[in-house]
Order: sequence, then structure tokens, then C-alpha cells
Amino acid sequence: MIASSAQALAVLIADGTGFVTRPVPELMLTLEGIAGDRHTGFTRKAGGREPWYPRGTPIRNDRQVSIVCPRELALVASRMAIAAVAPEWIGANLVVEGLESLTALPRGTRLVLPSGAALVVNGANAPCRHAGAEIARRENARTMPEREGLDLLFPKVARGLRGVIAAVERAGQVAAGDTISVVLPKG
Amino acid sequence: MIASSAQALAVLIADGTGFVTRPVPELMLTLEGIAGDRHTGFTRKAGGREPWYPRGTPIRNDRQVSIVCPRELALVASRMAIAAVAPEWIGANLVVEGLESLTALPRGTRLVLPSGAALVVNGANAPCRHAGAEIARRENARTMPEREGLDLLFPKVARGLRGVIAAVERAGQVAAGDTISVVLPKG
Repeated sequence: MIASSAQALAVLIADGTGFVTRPVPELMLTLEGIAGDRHTGFTRKAGGREPWYPRGTPIRNDRQVSIVCPRELALVASRMAIAAVAPEWIGANLVVEGLESLTALPRGTRLVLPSGAALVVNGANAPCRHAGAEIARRENARTMPEREGLDLLFPKVARGLRGVIAAVERAGQVAAGDTISVVLPKG
Repeated sequence: MIASSAQALAVLIADGTGFVTRPVPELMLTLEGIAGDRHTGFTRKAGGREPWYPRGTPIRNDRQVSIVCPRELALVASRMAIAAVAPEWIGANLVVEGLESLTALPRGTRLVLPSGAALVVNGANAPCRHAGAEIARRENARTMPEREGLDLLFPKVARGLRGVIAAVERAGQVAAGDTISVVLPKG
């Protein structure tokens, strides 16, 4: 149970249409997830990430919170030969810096906030084409000529760099600027 | 994602007083846990296993189902120099045989039942003194003279052999005799 520490650079919520998030000063974490976020719930519906379940099957929600690292996203952007991959484009809720490798954190790692809130990491996030399409849309709105295939390039190059998904273990707040204690699981 | 297979030898429920379980033909698994079992719920109260939270704090319930392996329990019994450690004494809900090492299954391993129900492993179960006390009570009721210290011996010798805890990812039934598909997590 080695503990290290990291910083919350930004916190974001998906409270509009789609999975895109927007920065807010603070998030309220309940045991169901982020209050007001589209991914909140003890349960969710199975989708493309769970091809072994019929689409729409109610399943346990281990994906309440999406966490990313700016250094990893910069590496993804560089591999895609684009200027940047912004956390909000890919639906991140928490931007964390100061870890050697966020995405490599083992399942069961606990992220503890100054409020007393705690998140439990449930694994690496698999980069998908939908997030890739949003990146492509933003990038192509910015530069000319349009580049084809950025949507499919993202899942190819972002594996192991797209951050982790987590669930709320203990309720509380998380704010931009918070120090995060990182507690690795025993055994 | 290597898949292997195992067998459910017995299914048990904690529907009396305390954590002790009793064998039943079948369990109904809901997304909250085992229907009618004392550990059911999306949330639970923090206790001695989570000394970093104030006792009684509501936390996410990753401990809906306790799973044990008869071979591992036989090894525990042998280390305690007693005849047996019965799954029901230590509150097991599912007795699984056919795995190289149940307790070593990584977090995120999926156990899929013929009904379509699925459990997700949330880690090795830490052997505690309360289960040790129940073993001591049963053993000392059976043999004379009484042996002191069996309660504390259990947590010492059962680490890595006390099975795993799990949560229900998809609802359904599990029955004694079921074949279980074991799906290791990616990455």
C-alpha cells in the first residue's frame, strides 16, 4: 500500500448533450457518481464496450468517473499529429497530473480527496471511436484541409494513455486544485 | 482475456443472524447483491476492514458476494491443525472448485454463470478475527480439550487462501452444480 500524491488540475461535468464535458469549479461526488453527470448511477446499460452482454442490459456501473492525465493526452495528440486532445472532448471528469503513469494504475487503487471523498479505479479506459470522432470534429474545425481517419486513429494510438475509469467509494467534493492521495491496493 | 472454467459446488446465503451462511439450491443475484442476504446493497457501512474511514460511513459496496475454494480452505484447516474449515462458518456464498488459485484471481475477473448472471472480482478477501472466532467455536464444540487462539490463528494462516469478494455485474441465478466461465481482465 504505497501512497503517492497527485493534483487535480481541473474537474469537469457531462451535463449537456452527449458525453462531452465542461470545466466547473467543483464536483459533488455521491455514491451513485457525479451529481448531475450523465454517467451517474449505481447501474447503467450495457453498450458497445460490453459486446458479451445484449445491448441495453442493466449492469453494475463501474464507469462513474473518467480520469485523464495531460501528459498522456499530449502524447496521444503527438501520435495523431494534432495540436492537442482536450480532456472535455473525450468526456473526462477529472484531470490529474503528477503521476508516473495514470493509465497504468492498478484496479483497486484509491484516490482520496481533501474533502474525504474517495474514488476507486476500475481499470484503464479503452479509447473508442466516438471520442475519436469528437477529436476529429474539433481538429478539422480548426485546421484546413480536413484530415480523414482521425476518429479511427484515436483508438489505435491512445491505448494505455486514455486514463482510467473509477467509481465513488465515499461521497464528498472534488475541486480544481485539490491534492489527491493515491493509495495502491494491497496484494 | 484468457477464459477457463470452474464449477459451483455449493451456493449459500446469510439470511439468519450474523455472517454465517447456509446452503440453498440457488441464489438470486440482483445488481444489489444476493436477494435476501445480509450483505446485499449498492452501499454498506465502513467497518474494521476500512480503518481509514470513520466506522459507519456509507461507502460503495464491493463486497456483495464471498467466494471460496475447498482446496484453499483445506490448506487453511491443515495449517490450523483442525479437521476442516466449512464455507458456511466464514460466511461464504459461493464454493468454487477447478481453479488453480481462486484467491489469486486478479481484480476485474468476470465469473459468468449459465443463467447469464455475472460477478466481478474485487480482490482477495482479508481473513478476519470474527471468522476465526466462528471456526474456533465450531472446532472447540467438536473436540476436547479446547484450543486457545484459533480465532487469531485464522487471520495469520489464511491470507491468500480465504477466497475473493465480488459484486454482481449482471443479474440472474446461480445454482449448485453450475459451470462458471472465468474471464480474466484485459490489460
